[in-house]
Amino acid sequence: MTSFEQIGSETVWSGRIGTVRVERYRHVDGEEVVRENVAHPGAVAIAAHDGTHVWLVRQPREIVGERALLEVPAGKLDGGGEAPLDAAKRELAEEVGKAAATWERVKAIYTSPGFTDERIEIFLATGLSDVERPAVEEDERIEVVAWPLARLDDAIAACEDAKSLVALLLLRGRRG
Amino acid sequence: MTSFEQIGSETVWSGRIGTVRVERYRHVDGEEVVRENVAHPGAVAIAAHDGTHVWLVRQPREIVGERALLEVPAGKLDGGGEAPLDAAKRELAEEVGKAAATWERVKAIYTSPGFTDERIEIFLATGLSDVERPAVEEDERIEVVAWPLARLDDAIAACEDAKSLVALLLLRGRRG
Repeated sequence: MTSFEQIGSETVWSGRIGTVRVERYRHVDGEEVVRENVAHPGAVAIAAHDGTHVWLVRQPREIVGERALLEVPAGKLDGGGEAPLDAAKRELAEEVGKAAATWERVKAIYTSPGFTDERIEIFLATGLSDVERPAVEEDERIEVVAWPLARLDDAIAACEDAKSLVALLLLRGRRG
Repeated sequence: MTSFEQIGSETVWSGRIGTVRVERYRHVDGEEVVRENVAHPGAVAIAAHDGTHVWLVRQPREIVGERALLEVPAGKLDGGGEAPLDAAKRELAEEVGKAAATWERVKAIYTSPGFTDERIEIFLATGLSDVERPAVEEDERIEVVAWPLARLDDAIAACEDAKSLVALLLLRGRRG
């Protein structure tokens, strides 16, 4: 069921986050619309818990202000077509030093579909064990936070990051 | 508590969605980092229900694919410093033709703080009444969806939009 077709795409800027494109679409009724798209490779986010703690990170997000944000482990897919589950395993090890015996894909979300095609697959990871944290990029400055599961509502209250909120709220829903 | 300072900002592209800037920051330990920021005016989203239905929209989001996305009413702040509550009232009228007697601010979220400063204030609106829908922008193609509150879990399952998921999951949490 095609309701529109893309009739143009112009790359106006390329950076590390992706490519900004001005795209034109024609709907079946003939109307043409222009959309600006920050084309993104996609990402993953992980709600990882061991029954006692949910493993979070605090990370400076310089562009939104002074406070480091409370987030779930997450990251972009590596170029070259990395599978989301592989990216999730990699990010969980890199960011909080954990591996998981059980992985479940719980949701895929678009972070802001009006202007970016960024899509984040959210996983639930359980059966955790410690692994060595590989060397991370020098500018990541990630603080690992073992947050008590019994205070999950407080994590939700403290969290301002959309993907992390979806992950934690879905986790809360499953725990009843 | 200042842990970093901005030491540079270069505008590399400007469009309708905002301005793309390459920003440089210096942390207190001397390390400098580069961040790419899609600078955004901010937005609002509304979980509006009348005790029987939650009022949603379906809207084509051409850049993420064929299917129209199921979302809560939402929109950008108007230029000139529109207050979030005023924007929420305006969007609820424009998108679903409703006014609300009671407004509560439930959360503010960053949609993707790694590359955009977009911040969305989420409101809960109750005590709904009908108003005339003002003329909307010609390319919005919004379908109003009165979704039964008793099937809120199905809306959450069908929803792929981050702000809408946060709004609906917080609504579900309040309804117990």
